[in-house]
Amino acid sequence: MPEPLPAAQAGSLPFAAETRLRVRYAETDQMGVVYYANYLIWMEIGRVELLRQAGFDYKSMELEDDCHIPVVEATCRYKAPARYDDEILIQTTSTVLRGYILKFAYRILRASDRTLLAEGETAHVITDRQMQRKLLPEKYVMALNRKAKSL
Amino acid sequence: MPEPLPAAQAGSLPFAAETRLRVRYAETDQMGVVYYANYLIWMEIGRVELLRQAGFDYKSMELEDDCHIPVVEATCRYKAPARYDDEILIQTTSTVLRGYILKFAYRILRASDRTLLAEGETAHVITDRQMQRKLLPEKYVMALNRKAKSL
Amino acid sequence: MPEPLPAAQAGSLPFAAETRLRVRYAETDQMGVVYYANYLIWMEIGRVELLRQAGFDYKSMELEDDCHIPVVEATCRYKAPARYDDEILIQTTSTVLRGYILKFAYRILRASDRTLLAEGETAHVITDRQMQRKLLPEKYVMALNRKAKSL
Amino acid sequence: MPEPLPAAQAGSLPFAAETRLRVRYAETDQMGVVYYANYLIWMEIGRVELLRQAGFDYKSMELEDDCHIPVVEATCRYKAPARYDDEILIQTTSTVLRGYILKFAYRILRASDRTLLAEGETAHVITDRQMQRKLLPEKYVMALNRKAKSL
Repeated sequence: MPEPLPAAQAGSLPFAAETRLRVRYAETDQMGVVYYANYLIWMEIGRVELLRQAGFDYKSMELEDDCHIPVVEATCRYKAPARYDDEILIQTTSTVLRGYILKFAYRILRASDRTLLAEGETAHVITDRQMQRKLLPEKYVMALNRKAKSL
Repeated sequence: MPEPLPAAQAGSLPFAAETRLRVRYAETDQMGVVYYANYLIWMEIGRVELLRQAGFDYKSMELEDDCHIPVVEATCRYKAPARYDDEILIQTTSTVLRGYILKFAYRILRASDRTLLAEGETAHVITDRQMQRKLLPEKYVMALNRKAKSL
Repeated sequence: MPEPLPAAQAGSLPFAAETRLRVRYAETDQMGVVYYANYLIWMEIGRVELLRQAGFDYKSMELEDDCHIPVVEATCRYKAPARYDDEILIQTTSTVLRGYILKFAYRILRASDRTLLAEGETAHVITDRQMQRKLLPEKYVMALNRKAKSL
Repeated sequence: MPEPLPAAQAGSLPFAAETRLRVRYAETDQMGVVYYANYLIWMEIGRVELLRQAGFDYKSMELEDDCHIPVVEATCRYKAPARYDDEILIQTTSTVLRGYILKFAYRILRASDRTLLAEGETAHVITDRQMQRKLLPEKYVMALNRKAKSL
């Protein structure tokens, strides 16, 4: 199980969720390292896990509450390459802004020595299936806030 | 433009559509060749192009006719590796069986010297959005047959 | 054409390794199910795990023994769709033929109710980095056989 | 944080290369739109094409000049969704900084009506195969500058 991160190691970033994965062969490219677009897939895994740990899952958000969170901006800064079969640690934190903007920040580390491989942010708006903006239902806002306070 | 293939080169396979693409960096893996799952993505490009050349497109099949063609079997035999930036030629042929089974056969070649890189087949059933089997609408059967006869 | 597996192997398949993963959002397509090429990525995860459980890993096979296992054939039969966030179980078994052919068989199940979603096979040849065929080093053959006998 | 592009560059961006592609089924996700990580793959296609149009290709940069351009930062702002089968236009421009930093800016449009779907930037350092920083060989700098001036 992921152990809590010492505050100093995360910079000043309070993190809300941590998840692990192992680099797949399919994720490497001919430079022998993980292809850069895959880090955005890992970020998605991190934010889904944060939502899950906050007590709800993205699947039912979509199906039951018609609540989607399309990305409006994504940034990733690459520090060191991830390689095939590395175990990867994804730390994710989130903030809700004005009720309809959801921001996530990510730190991607090599689990074996906790080297920081990449860090990034994504910003999302809450929409319905037709991509019309809507407020994040109160239960989700509360769950995220509870999660943030429990750190 | 793709010129017709001499009969001998295609084995006995009459082909109905040909399309080209260039290998993306993202498609390579750390062996320096195209990762094997990507050939199935290329096959999909080949069959979409065959449908397009037969006079209809898969997008409207899904949206207007609620007609989907989920795959039930896929096979690929790998002969020689495709590499980054290679221009790839995909030759696709199709058959309709019993009105609800659609089969495609593919040959994937390196365009520069026409080396056969891979060949394969996929089998599909016709379904609606809820994955219930249905007959391929007559207009599609006719279009595919017309295309086959025009060879 | 892929020849049918012996009935016993396809039915009550003795499996040598089992691994789990969770369906990623990136793996779905607009039909709302997992895109078919991704099953080949999952098969790769299954066979890597089998090798790991047999006591060695593919990474060191490549780096230390210059021993690669490019695929020469892959087949997948799709039974039922996998969906976003499903937990997936991959069961993998292997056979070494003539010292330089490695075959894997896979069963892909939904973990929650053990529904069979897909099954397939891949065949590989052992090569060096230059794609020249070579025998699988004895230690790997022995490890795989040990694993098979320990079932 | 990514600093804002100068207004002129973001608005009436002078572009140095343009390339087209068609959205693949594999690139969609269950929201029915292109999954966000794929835009980074498209950006790579844009910058490879810019290099090609400037008279050299990335493949020989890697093989002959041991000159790699790993990404150090990538940003994408998503404006409107790309959908299956859309024809996509990628406009790419580049700048060389201090001889070892290469920046690209991208605009991704729907070809049919030139709607801006996304825009972004990537920053790269020039390295050898061992990821050690090196200067971009003079011939490449000159080719990129020539291309920029020929606008």
